[in-house]
Amino acid sequence: MPTPATPDAGDWRVQDSVDLDETAQTAEKLIAAGVDAIVTLGSLGECATLTWEEKRAYLGTLVETVRGRVPLFGGTSSLGTRETIRQTREARAIGIDGVMLGPPMWCAPDVPTAVQFYRDVAEACPDTAICIYANPEAFKFDFPRPFWAQVAEIPQVITAKYLGIGALMADLNLTKGRIRFLPIDADYYAAARIAPEFCTAFWTSGAVCGPAPVLRLRDEVERAKKCGDWAQAQALTGAISRTYQTLFPQGSFKEFSLYNIGLEKARMDAAGWMRAGPARPPYTLVPEAYLEGARESGRRWAQLHREYDKQGG
Amino acid sequence: MPTPATPDAGDWRVQDSVDLDETAQTAEKLIAAGVDAIVTLGSLGECATLTWEEKRAYLGTLVETVRGRVPLFGGTSSLGTRETIRQTREARAIGIDGVMLGPPMWCAPDVPTAVQFYRDVAEACPDTAICIYANPEAFKFDFPRPFWAQVAEIPQVITAKYLGIGALMADLNLTKGRIRFLPIDADYYAAARIAPEFCTAFWTSGAVCGPAPVLRLRDEVERAKKCGDWAQAQALTGAISRTYQTLFPQGSFKEFSLYNIGLEKARMDAAGWMRAGPARPPYTLVPEAYLEGARESGRRWAQLHREYDKQGG
Amino acid sequence: MPTPATPDAGDWRVQDSVDLDETAQTAEKLIAAGVDAIVTLGSLGECATLTWEEKRAYLGTLVETVRGRVPLFGGTSSLGTRETIRQTREARAIGIDGVMLGPPMWCAPDVPTAVQFYRDVAEACPDTAICIYANPEAFKFDFPRPFWAQVAEIPQVITAKYLGIGALMADLNLTKGRIRFLPIDADYYAAARIAPEFCTAFWTSGAVCGPAPVLRLRDEVERAKKCGDWAQAQALTGAISRTYQTLFPQGSFKEFSLYNIGLEKARMDAAGWMRAGPARPPYTLVPEAYLEGARESGRRWAQLHREYDKQGG
Amino acid sequence: MPTPATPDAGDWRVQDSVDLDETAQTAEKLIAAGVDAIVTLGSLGECATLTWEEKRAYLGTLVETVRGRVPLFGGTSSLGTRETIRQTREARAIGIDGVMLGPPMWCAPDVPTAVQFYRDVAEACPDTAICIYANPEAFKFDFPRPFWAQVAEIPQVITAKYLGIGALMADLNLTKGRIRFLPIDADYYAAARIAPEFCTAFWTSGAVCGPAPVLRLRDEVERAKKCGDWAQAQALTGAISRTYQTLFPQGSFKEFSLYNIGLEKARMDAAGWMRAGPARPPYTLVPEAYLEGARESGRRWAQLHREYDKQGG
Repeated sequence: MPTPATPDAGDWRVQDSVDLDETAQTAEKLIAAGVDAIVTLGSLGECATLTWEEKRAYLGTLVETVRGRVPLFGGTSSLGTRETIRQTREARAIGIDGVMLGPPMWCAPDVPTAVQFYRDVAEACPDTAICIYANPEAFKFDFPRPFWAQVAEIPQVITAKYLGIGALMADLNLTKGRIRFLPIDADYYAAARIAPEFCTAFWTSGAVCGPAPVLRLRDEVERAKKCGDWAQAQALTGAISRTYQTLFPQGSFKEFSLYNIGLEKARMDAAGWMRAGPARPPYTLVPEAYLEGARESGRRWAQLHREYDKQGG
Repeated sequence: MPTPATPDAGDWRVQDSVDLDETAQTAEKLIAAGVDAIVTLGSLGECATLTWEEKRAYLGTLVETVRGRVPLFGGTSSLGTRETIRQTREARAIGIDGVMLGPPMWCAPDVPTAVQFYRDVAEACPDTAICIYANPEAFKFDFPRPFWAQVAEIPQVITAKYLGIGALMADLNLTKGRIRFLPIDADYYAAARIAPEFCTAFWTSGAVCGPAPVLRLRDEVERAKKCGDWAQAQALTGAISRTYQTLFPQGSFKEFSLYNIGLEKARMDAAGWMRAGPARPPYTLVPEAYLEGARESGRRWAQLHREYDKQGG
Repeated sequence: MPTPATPDAGDWRVQDSVDLDETAQTAEKLIAAGVDAIVTLGSLGECATLTWEEKRAYLGTLVETVRGRVPLFGGTSSLGTRETIRQTREARAIGIDGVMLGPPMWCAPDVPTAVQFYRDVAEACPDTAICIYANPEAFKFDFPRPFWAQVAEIPQVITAKYLGIGALMADLNLTKGRIRFLPIDADYYAAARIAPEFCTAFWTSGAVCGPAPVLRLRDEVERAKKCGDWAQAQALTGAISRTYQTLFPQGSFKEFSLYNIGLEKARMDAAGWMRAGPARPPYTLVPEAYLEGARESGRRWAQLHREYDKQGG
Repeated sequence: MPTPATPDAGDWRVQDSVDLDETAQTAEKLIAAGVDAIVTLGSLGECATLTWEEKRAYLGTLVETVRGRVPLFGGTSSLGTRETIRQTREARAIGIDGVMLGPPMWCAPDVPTAVQFYRDVAEACPDTAICIYANPEAFKFDFPRPFWAQVAEIPQVITAKYLGIGALMADLNLTKGRIRFLPIDADYYAAARIAPEFCTAFWTSGAVCGPAPVLRLRDEVERAKKCGDWAQAQALTGAISRTYQTLFPQGSFKEFSLYNIGLEKARMDAAGWMRAGPARPPYTLVPEAYLEGARESGRRWAQLHREYDKQGG
């Protein structure tokens, strides 16, 4: 879930850029639709560009709205271990269940540094769950196998936002299933076939473009695991993937990563299910051709949502 | 100049990790030795891992010590434009002359985004000088020529910490000399020969290992520009470069960049001219073989300092 | 299948470095064991470092041995289109069924250049099947989706040696199943689950370490597709993956790619099922620690071969 | 010097694609103009895409034309050590003085492999000089310092086509001046200032766009070394650099490297001093916008040539 922005949020002069009404409404709508958890303040949640005061107000509104009905995870990434610990403790006091954290990004970390970072946070915040935010473009780190083997030993690390499926089986073997890897929606079908017993959930930025397609995907995979008929899950995955075709500029994840905040928010606003609002500085400038691809992606998702929403209703 | 650390600064529990006495003494010794400016709170100054409270106390001590005798620049990098503006305004109020700033690092920036970031800071802090921190490993940005052409139009951008000399002439032409590029000490001889009129200063982390070699380098280049005899400047550059041979693991700048904080602080402590203290979390773990190379680099520099200090005295 | 080398093949003075007796015996043993096709003269087949005279003799021996019992593919990569066409025509005249070809590697190709290369070869050699050799480390090309969409229109392009499974579904959709993608043995289980109807074969350099494990894998996947019980295929994949653990230095495919020829040949010789012999110049030097990892990988495979060979007998 | 191509050389059906008349005329004109050496069959000389029969005919024509008046170097790069030795011996028998060779490119080489390659060629061809072709984009190798230190011990290695000046001083120190590094024309001024005693020559693909600017550059640097007035050499370097502004797509050397053959040949043909002709397959496709930049670069060079040719006449 993105952090809804006021219309003037692209201006550096603005101090309170969070639209708290939209925040409450979106969280309520997601829960009403039936999502299993809410994760926010990652890249698209603009954890990098919100002030701590804004994050606090935003998390407070979310906690009040969610009222424990689903687990709530918020990002507390910062440039240093001590600042992240401070934010994590405060966020926990506000009422979140867990944090989503990438490794430190000023220097590219090696494996011991990345692991020690999670150990320190876990030791400082023993009752806060940790979701590892495994994005190699953001964190200058390729999340190699020895990393997973070692963080799996930290009890607080229970899940990970995970990109790709190429190394999934190896990483599952290494972590002995202790970390619940969350693939992206478009990879969930494949992940669930490869390792049906371990891949039981996924993350999606599509839910806020209209949750019907991903809720159906969740249920179809569940059904397929029982009855062995995967045709519908595969077809739905194909339909979801087609909405993504115009989101990635020139098909490149690396190029997308330069503009992911602006592109995702444009996609969400074009889908029309919620109001994400403008991106915050410095990520306010995106090539117009890329934005149009993102909007088209949002419109395709909205169409898919209407189809499945009707079926589901 | 690094931010001197208390002996327990490697522990995430520590709240006041800055050794303010050592801070004052080191700044005083640098000015007494004759340096032309003090720049701090870059990578080695640990701007990423200090809390804002620590930075404030540290800058306060520096301002009191320096008392306007040389220009004082401090880093206010953060993950977002608004937080950097907030810190820059506060640092300016404390009394610094300028800030050293790299472009935003959460997403790799494109040229318009990086330029707009500096424009926004300059607009928000019109009386604060800006030194661009041009480190491609830290900032996921290769500082291409169009970037330099555009930031040269921002009056507050007066200088840049600049790596390498390969593109120096082209970048000087593009910026029409408006930005004073500061090469590293080992590149100063070459830069001053290529563009004697524009290359009149350099940055160095060696000064706090003992300032005599770099002060002599400054003076030798000045002399050579007048008399045309560059032999001594070249020889001194060779001697300085030999101290670096063991600092870069396997000769790689990229590998060095993973551990630069810990390596530089180990080098400084081994040189013995000041007490840099331990690195702050998460950058506390460095392979021992790399550390030994860094210490050897410090010892070589200290030897060079003794040679030139005697000559100078 | 590697090109068996005489004991002195590492010396640049040697002119006839191919062990033709071992060539004939290995091909015969593979067919007797029940493999479905033989592919050779890729990286491990040392297509880069054999002279054309050697390749001709080697292919001649293979054609005579195989006698049409299984399809035979040989690599005719070179630095230029015209030389590859010349070699392909001659290899076809000798009697091979198809060629395995990566895109040109002097300049990193863009998509139009890579596609045109395959079009030219197909036009020049209309009755020769083409297997695309999709190795991004070797060919400075990342084989993006538009590439697959376009080469799928070339009738001669019938298959591809394919690395990873992350993009498999998307590439299958784009090529509408016209190209048979061959994943590596360790990825075959996952690929077959994701797309059971399209993933019906795989490539392996393990067959020449003892073919029993991969023949069993082939049959287990076939069985699982029919009965829905994938447990044995998954367990066997785990066992195969464990043999690879020591083959990749520090777990890195990129590091492995620097030494893949020497490492694979050391692995094969340690397994003892055939004699691969030394690598040819210039790829004769491999760090000893890496070689020992490769040999251990070979010994693990040989152990696995013995287990499954006994069961199968 | 490029290998002049017949008008139909872009077609893979063509067997004799070298325009031998243009070859002889261009070589004669270069010598008449006063160049100090001719180097050919690098990337732009299309060593990758010429057949060996064409290279033989081409080198034969060059040898006959040059008749020992200047040193003649030709590239004999191939995918393997033995093939390169074979071509080098034959080229030497034809009458060339030396070969330009990059390290093997199928696998990215490590330092020992790259060094051993040059040792093997030197041992096999003891009376042939070697120019190391140090292009990191072509050869997947970054030519680190230990490489230069070791190849400097091979007597046949006397020079190197060298990119950039950032590491020049360090590499000169390591090689103790045994290897004559040839920077590109636009870097020659800087290189000659940094190390006047060692940087005494440069390479240029501009000579065949009209040699007057680079001959003047050579003479101006020579004059400046004696009299200490570098203003004209610097100004001429600026003028040469301006011709390059439109040659590099988006200012990127990496992007240029995808199309360098086609771009350089378009530039040369637009300059009009010689006829380079079309690029050979597979490097026949270049985006039209890039080509127009290359042609503009050629026209600018031609204008510069006219200016200096008049002055020189």
